[in-house]
Order: sequence, then C-alpha cells, then structure tokens
Amino acid sequence: AILDGVDAYLQPKSLRGLRVLVTAGPTYEAIDAVRGITNRSSGKMGYAVAKAAAAAGARVSLVTGPTGIPGPAVAETVAVTSAQQMLEAVEARVDEADIFIAVAAVADYYVLNPSENKIKKDAHILTLELAPNPDILANVSSLDKPPFCVGFAAESENLEEYAELKRKRKHLPLIVANDATKAIGSDEVELVLLDDAGRHVLALADKATQARRLVEHVARLYNANNP
Amino acid sequence: AILDGVDAYLQPKSLRGLRVLVTAGPTYEAIDAVRGITNRSSGKMGYAVAKAAAAAGARVSLVTGPTGIPGPAVAETVAVTSAQQMLEAVEARVDEADIFIAVAAVADYYVLNPSENKIKKDAHILTLELAPNPDILANVSSLDKPPFCVGFAAESENLEEYAELKRKRKHLPLIVANDATKAIGSDEVELVLLDDAGRHVLALADKATQARRLVEHVARLYNANNP
Repeated sequence: AILDGVDAYLQPKSLRGLRVLVTAGPTYEAIDAVRGITNRSSGKMGYAVAKAAAAAGARVSLVTGPTGIPGPAVAETVAVTSAQQMLEAVEARVDEADIFIAVAAVADYYVLNPSENKIKKDAHILTLELAPNPDILANVSSLDKPPFCVGFAAESENLEEYAELKRKRKHLPLIVANDATKAIGSDEVELVLLDDAGRHVLALADKATQARRLVEHVARLYNANNP
Repeated sequence: AILDGVDAYLQPKSLRGLRVLVTAGPTYEAIDAVRGITNRSSGKMGYAVAKAAAAAGARVSLVTGPTGIPGPAVAETVAVTSAQQMLEAVEARVDEADIFIAVAAVADYYVLNPSENKIKKDAHILTLELAPNPDILANVSSLDKPPFCVGFAAESENLEEYAELKRKRKHLPLIVANDATKAIGSDEVELVLLDDAGRHVLALADKATQARRLVEHVARLYNANNP
C-alpha cells in the first residue's frame, strides 16, 4: 500500500481535477433465490482502470458488479448486482463525470419472471425466457451533453470489426477491443484501441500496465478536445 | 501463514490419517463464449471446511468451481468449471476418500446447445433450454462402498424440512442446513446439522468457526462408526 502510494505520486497527473466514472465486473441477473446468469468477467481490468485513473489525478467513482476480489481505493465505490441497478448508479453520477469508462461486462439479458424462492430441481427441461437489458453505455453516450465515453468490446470472433461497429453505433470517441477467448481469467492481455485516428495496439502486458497505458491515451484525447 | 500453522498444530487431530474429499464454490454452465449460469456461492464455506479438515489432520483433496478468492493450502486442489467436470474430478478421487463433504453449490441445470461464440445482442426475447445436471452427491452416496457423506442444503424456505428430505433421499448420515437468503455473501452464518440423532444448531459464527465445529461433529460420527 505504501509502494502503491509512491507509485501514484510518481505518475504524471494527466487527469488532475477531472471526474472519472468507471464501471467494472460482471452483472448478475437472478433466475431464482440462488441462481443467476452472469459472465466470466473477474473485475480485474475495471479495477485496474479505476486505480490508474485515480493515480493520474482523477476523482474516481467506481460502480462495480459482484466480484470476489477487493476493490481499489478510489473516492467512491458503489456495489451493484444487476444491469438495471448498474444503470441507476451510473445515471445518478454521470452528470458529474467528465469521462465515463465502461469496463463492466454488463449482462445483455435479464430473466423474465425470476422466482423469489429456489426452484426445486426435477428431471424436466426448464425453459428460461430472457429479455434485453438496457444498454448503459449507449444510454450515456446518447445524452445531450455526454461525458467523454470509452467502451470495451469483448468479442470471441471478428474482434476489431465488431468493436469498430460498436464504436460507430454508440458514437464513442474510443473503444478498447479485447479478445474474450484470451482475456478472461488471464492476468496478461493484448488490447487494441480504436479511435478516430485509427488503431493502437497495446502489446501483451499485465492489466495494471494496460490500464495505465489506456488512461494516458484517454487523457491525451480528452485534453486535446478540451484545451 | 505462520499463525495458521500454529493454529493447525494446536487443533486436536481428530481426522488424523483420514482422506477427505471436499467440493466448494459454484459451478458455471456456459450459455456462450462469455455468458453462463451460476449461483451466488462465494466458495468461502467450502474453503473453510477444507482448511478445518486439514487442520484436524486429514489429507484433503479440494475440488473447486470458479471463485475469485485464493484457495486454502491443502494436499490437492483441482479447479473445475462445470458440474460435469466437478463430477469427473470427484469420481476420479472418491475411491480413495474416507469422508466426502459436498459443500459446492452445484448448478442443477446446464444449458442445452451452448454457443461457442458470443451471441450478439438483439431486441428479441431469447429462450434458453436447461437440462438437469448429474447429482454429484447422490452419485457418490449410492456407490456400493460410499465414503462417509456429508451434504449441504441451501434453501430459501422450509429449511429443515427440505434438508431432512434431501438427507433421507440421498441416504446421508449428516446434512448441513443453511438459509440461502441469509448465508450468501455473509461472513457469519447459523447452521443446523441434521443426523440420525436429531438436530444440532451451530449458533451464528464466522465460517472458519462453523467449519471447525462441523469437522469435529463429522469426526465424532465417523470415528463412532469406524472404531
């Protein structure tokens, strides 16, 4: 913790005075009292981004889905479970944010009519009906005065093509493409940043390093647009 | 870690020379490359039980589903994802086990025809078909020469009634009933042990304490039956 402090002190303060809102982790959509739908996000990348933004001088609010790991020491941490709760926590804070970095792997679907009690197991096929969740990042990026929005695209195929389509569709200045089949559960990742200037590969490195590189890239773009 | 060692040394060695197989954590059943069905088990209770059994002198094999927390230092730890993988890991080790403690919250259902790639989100209702998973504990307890089997029943209603029905149905000498609505995510739990002699309440305490009490109860029953 002391070394973390020294490390943070030595970082250039490229986000000094800015307020950064970060989402992290998976969301969890209840099927019944004990079961639910989630995804394989560990929360590590989002926590690393929140920490790197704080180290760069930002006031960071972190909205996190359920993870099994301790969160970083940032100005505010809000723990949520479902995508709907994450949306509400983001909406309550987004007016204050200069930069929004959506790292969370939000569940795209929720379960219609979840059961309050544990469904008893039987030998039959069970059918679940899932309905689309709100798209938190698209909601934010389509605001009248959106913060500077950064998306993450975890894809298992056609990585950069799908990521660029998502960036264009949601009108994002920057999206981070990562290969879900390699990134999940791994401590080292390769990332590709896609912005109006093209593609920027962040060569394989641990998540703390990638988060610092990403935050510096975000700071350059943000500061160029807000001189 | 040094204090853990001292603590372990001071424990009565009630399971000395015995081999204990423990399952822990949730299982995760893939929907597609990034999404899946799981449950809210943190793995903490199972890890505490594995640690307490090792402290009581047992050689412990731990089969664990995906958790975000570090596992205990026991003789062998096997990381699995799905219920089917957990079953295979248990079957490969159960012949060697004197005692089997099934703490894992195994997903009761798996997804038929999971997608290898990430399903693209669209605005439509998605229907998932789920089929029942194998019952790992029932498979073990119905072996010709089963180990001493301990089950866990996490219920959201009719706690002791459902737990006792499960104990009888699976022919278990001992089952641990816990209230899923209170236990999940909590560090302190109340447990009720149900065995042929009746019910034994383990009053509210942290999971390490409950695990030690449970292991001592298991050791008394096991040693009474195997003098």
